[in-house]
Amino acid sequence: MGLPSDSGLELYSKWPSGKRNLITDIPGVKVGHATIKDGEINTGVTAILPHGGNLFKEKVMAGCAVLNGFGKSLGLVQIEELGTIETPILMTNTLSVGTAAEALVKYMLKDNPDIGVETGTVNCVVTECNDGRLNDIRGLHVKEEHVNEAINNASEDFEEGAVGGGTGMVCLGLKGGIGSASRVIPVDGKDYTVGAIVMSNFGSSGNLVIGGDHIGARIKERIDAESKKDLGSIIIVVGTDLPLSDRQLNRVARRAAAALGRVGSYMGNGSGDVVLSFSTGNILSHYSEKDIIDIKVMYDENIDKVFESAVEAVEESIISALYHAETTTGFRGNKYYSLREFL
Amino acid sequence: MGLPSDSGLELYSKWPSGKRNLITDIPGVKVGHATIKDGEINTGVTAILPHGGNLFKEKVMAGCAVLNGFGKSLGLVQIEELGTIETPILMTNTLSVGTAAEALVKYMLKDNPDIGVETGTVNCVVTECNDGRLNDIRGLHVKEEHVNEAINNASEDFEEGAVGGGTGMVCLGLKGGIGSASRVIPVDGKDYTVGAIVMSNFGSSGNLVIGGDHIGARIKERIDAESKKDLGSIIIVVGTDLPLSDRQLNRVARRAAAALGRVGSYMGNGSGDVVLSFSTGNILSHYSEKDIIDIKVMYDENIDKVFESAVEAVEESIISALYHAETTTGFRGNKYYSLREFL
Amino acid sequence: MGLPSDSGLELYSKWPSGKRNLITDIPGVKVGHATIKDGEINTGVTAILPHGGNLFKEKVMAGCAVLNGFGKSLGLVQIEELGTIETPILMTNTLSVGTAAEALVKYMLKDNPDIGVETGTVNCVVTECNDGRLNDIRGLHVKEEHVNEAINNASEDFEEGAVGGGTGMVCLGLKGGIGSASRVIPVDGKDYTVGAIVMSNFGSSGNLVIGGDHIGARIKERIDAESKKDLGSIIIVVGTDLPLSDRQLNRVARRAAAALGRVGSYMGNGSGDVVLSFSTGNILSHYSEKDIIDIKVMYDENIDKVFESAVEAVEESIISALYHAETTTGFRGNKYYSLREFL
Amino acid sequence: MGLPSDSGLELYSKWPSGKRNLITDIPGVKVGHATIKDGEINTGVTAILPHGGNLFKEKVMAGCAVLNGFGKSLGLVQIEELGTIETPILMTNTLSVGTAAEALVKYMLKDNPDIGVETGTVNCVVTECNDGRLNDIRGLHVKEEHVNEAINNASEDFEEGAVGGGTGMVCLGLKGGIGSASRVIPVDGKDYTVGAIVMSNFGSSGNLVIGGDHIGARIKERIDAESKKDLGSIIIVVGTDLPLSDRQLNRVARRAAAALGRVGSYMGNGSGDVVLSFSTGNILSHYSEKDIIDIKVMYDENIDKVFESAVEAVEESIISALYHAETTTGFRGNKYYSLREFL
Repeated sequence: MGLPSDSGLELYSKWPSGKRNLITDIPGVKVGHATIKDGEINTGVTAILPHGGNLFKEKVMAGCAVLNGFGKSLGLVQIEELGTIETPILMTNTLSVGTAAEALVKYMLKDNPDIGVETGTVNCVVTECNDGRLNDIRGLHVKEEHVNEAINNASEDFEEGAVGGGTGMVCLGLKGGIGSASRVIPVDGKDYTVGAIVMSNFGSSGNLVIGGDHIGARIKERIDAESKKDLGSIIIVVGTDLPLSDRQLNRVARRAAAALGRVGSYMGNGSGDVVLSFSTGNILSHYSEKDIIDIKVMYDENIDKVFESAVEAVEESIISALYHAETTTGFRGNKYYSLREFL
Repeated sequence: MGLPSDSGLELYSKWPSGKRNLITDIPGVKVGHATIKDGEINTGVTAILPHGGNLFKEKVMAGCAVLNGFGKSLGLVQIEELGTIETPILMTNTLSVGTAAEALVKYMLKDNPDIGVETGTVNCVVTECNDGRLNDIRGLHVKEEHVNEAINNASEDFEEGAVGGGTGMVCLGLKGGIGSASRVIPVDGKDYTVGAIVMSNFGSSGNLVIGGDHIGARIKERIDAESKKDLGSIIIVVGTDLPLSDRQLNRVARRAAAALGRVGSYMGNGSGDVVLSFSTGNILSHYSEKDIIDIKVMYDENIDKVFESAVEAVEESIISALYHAETTTGFRGNKYYSLREFL
Repeated sequence: MGLPSDSGLELYSKWPSGKRNLITDIPGVKVGHATIKDGEINTGVTAILPHGGNLFKEKVMAGCAVLNGFGKSLGLVQIEELGTIETPILMTNTLSVGTAAEALVKYMLKDNPDIGVETGTVNCVVTECNDGRLNDIRGLHVKEEHVNEAINNASEDFEEGAVGGGTGMVCLGLKGGIGSASRVIPVDGKDYTVGAIVMSNFGSSGNLVIGGDHIGARIKERIDAESKKDLGSIIIVVGTDLPLSDRQLNRVARRAAAALGRVGSYMGNGSGDVVLSFSTGNILSHYSEKDIIDIKVMYDENIDKVFESAVEAVEESIISALYHAETTTGFRGNKYYSLREFL
Repeated sequence: MGLPSDSGLELYSKWPSGKRNLITDIPGVKVGHATIKDGEINTGVTAILPHGGNLFKEKVMAGCAVLNGFGKSLGLVQIEELGTIETPILMTNTLSVGTAAEALVKYMLKDNPDIGVETGTVNCVVTECNDGRLNDIRGLHVKEEHVNEAINNASEDFEEGAVGGGTGMVCLGLKGGIGSASRVIPVDGKDYTVGAIVMSNFGSSGNLVIGGDHIGARIKERIDAESKKDLGSIIIVVGTDLPLSDRQLNRVARRAAAALGRVGSYMGNGSGDVVLSFSTGNILSHYSEKDIIDIKVMYDENIDKVFESAVEAVEESIISALYHAETTTGFRGNKYYSLREFL
């Protein structure tokens, strides 16, 4: 739902939100969570499905940007080379990337008996942030079942805040998590959606800016939650139904840095800031009878509205994650407050 | 001088400014301008000298980041490969890059009779923005003499605003130009300087944010200066006397994107947003008798203060450029107002 | 003409050559030279025109790869961002990049009165190698007229060897220069051309391999031409009429490294090895009434024949440059022999 | 042992091999295998340990190059950002990257109780090729125990050929696998080692070139093993005890492309060609009391011998893998011959 109108918080936004104000305003996109919450355990998995069909057989065009590469995400090498995503996108904790990747491989093999036999293998996309401040991350509590649960739960409606991969995340000294938002822009006389979803775990206490208001300074006076070095990160996924090329999707992905700047980030050393982007406007079949295929792309000179709406959607997603996340006590009694306690 | 304390403008800054609040607070750095101003002609050259010696013989370690590559700067390929800068850094208008490069080659040959004979050639660094809104850019009014003038004028004190390469620049619908600022940070118990200088020519009218205040929205109600598509760009140079490695300087350069986000940019399609960074803390001799040499680098885990101070210095440099630039009427009678008219 | 059948030299080639065995086998591509030869002066300009129309108004899709960035080429930043080339591609000596860029700007302004006024500026592509072993490179003997001459001379037939930008180049201890070749591949039942042209100036004496024959070892026993450190470089341009995307053109460009490996290069420190690639199969108009446009791309799974034919064309281009270049005596009496003296 | 002198095979090599002619000629480097071989199952794990101590606490400086990104390796994002490797480097099959990563996480947690609690997480490096032609890759036969076995087996002496991660690999139509070689070069009057190890699984039948001899053409006439599209890849690791910087290690990694060219590769679409490089000459402590630290780097102008010896070591490693690999029959009765059957 993004930031509700009665939140009292306002961002500088030029473009209107979509119906749900979620990335799932893009037709076909679904998001699901598996939340693992038990005392010192606060972690989980979030799955983003760019469309509801067989992603391996019908790939979406994709891009990415590594804003700060202190991160352990899997799958970017191939996205950069081939410009496609062919699996659900998973978000989980850093030490569980391997487990989640193995589970995602099994999930993909199940529906695609040709993988590894008649055709090549599959490029699993698993992203991560370190939730070790609230989660017993060394316990490796994410299991195969949680990956399946997140994928199977995927729906057009989904929760934001301390859920799924965001369960144990911390952002700018407050409780972080999953946030999402969308924007609608007119292109060639038709409405298209630019949506974002983030797993937000970055930033130093005191730096938070919301719509130009340096609220972080005031919050820092009231709490002393963040004394350790920043260990966080942010995973940002931007999607659209506009037919962008992989190059254009890379350009969109790089714009997320401006959104980070708006909310008070300087992309700290320890923050693995990774952006993925995809378009459902160009579907690429795994098998093709023809060597030459037709795609649609945007005329770059008119792409500014895509860039600007993407920045707005990412900015709102980050603030929405903070807004929806509940105050949480977790690993070793560490406690992180909800932004709402300071509004 | 950056933003003066009586400007009424305030940014969120954690780190204190240096003595001059200019990039020349870094010991040895000098900046000079050649301003070309005559009716429809509003252009020029700005030269940044990382140190006052023979730059070809004593190179500074360097990095760069192309935030948006809609630009025509010269010299980045080699900076990326070798991690050094070996000439003054020039800023001028887009169509004069060739002229400036030829002039810089001649300048470098003069002091280095070995170039092209006993040793290889020289990597000239020439950056650019399109000043065609205020300047008769097609007239190619920058000449060799202006490059020499800018270099020879270089000093620890220099003007900001509509001078040098910034003479005809436009930023966020207002008169742009050259701006600079610095920050001082303690490292291993000693003070080091992180400084920035920008040639600022980017952004759409209405988007300007200063210290969280969305002043652009109010300005836009009063002027209608910017109806054309954004043709701008920004060149950002960040320097320091801290001994950073080329990889670390690349990291610093990428952080400038956060500063752009803070002031209202979304890195528009037409904006060639290019960042250079250098450190005078590691000087690399062109000739070496030894194969293995010693350098100093920062421990990455403690580099956050460098990143944050760089973002602050870049942000202030952009606002300072706007603050110092005078209202200017130029090419075809186009008029762009100084920010100060709206304070 | 590439390597003539009576040269006695044979490469391992899977794909047949085009009619001329030149990059101009791609319909519309033209190449022209301006050769400057006078005692110690051995330099020039070569211009490659991807098509004969207005390149600024009808851009070709393009890619690039920096195999070793010890080089000073102009224009790559924007090719990487936008995936287009919008001017002739120039090849000249390193210290003349600025002069050539200024001349190319003037050439482009002449036919495009909208540049810098109604629309943005223009991204001039100027590539270079250091011909200082045979040329008085410090004399800056390339002038505006030579750039115009090279462009105006452009034709489907052109010379190879010590001509144009290749006049003073040295390669693998022998006289280098301009070389070209082409391959024809069937795609979707139709013949397409993959062509290459190189300005070849790289490599250490003794390393030359031709079709697996380590001829360089034998040549080195007979001459002692190359005692100085390698100061060379190679510029490689690969073109095709196949509709490849910019991402695919980047992939093609990166394959040139395999051709360098085949002929004995290890991509030495001082060798600025830069590759450009373009496709005339996707023409992008500078102005568009529509936001969304149609392009054609290749199905990546079937792209291997493009990669392999590109490697073959680049390899043959390098050997062809050596084959056609005449023994030349130049700067300070330096003399470099033609490969033909050793066959 | 690389290519034995009685193999009858000869490469053009300028630099001498080290004592073992293996990557373990670099002091401290160890390699271990876990081989899984049972009927249709032909897979395994190879572990490269840059040194024998706690890699997380004492990181090696590192670089990488993605020559062709059709691959699923884990860990490159952080190597690019921070220039370090902090775990053993694993090589395994593509679908087992997740399993291997989970196992490697557990291995790293065991010796480092601070990971995820007092400090950040750990960047596991897991590389892969698709061994599905000889291995029941969908069966996911690599287990945690195999990762531990490979690491625990690590020693200065290790087998080459169809062992460890190379058990099921296929290369240029022949049986591929693990190969290694080394070169010794004098730097500042002292001998240093440049070593390589590959997991070789790339290339089309018929293309193999050994020391200039196009033996692949002759082999292809005798066998028809390779009719399917190329699904292969190659993982290349180059190590050295020379103190190179991360930037220099990236440069070394990119040179591996020349070695691929020498042996007949054109870096096919489906070949995930990934190179890692590391130096034991600069050890970076995870914890540092000082912000500024001293490192040693090479003077770039003298780095050519490192590049050339690296190309030679990689080339020999590939041929050595082919030489040592035994003829193997595996998945669905597929049979791939040893190179030795054709000598």
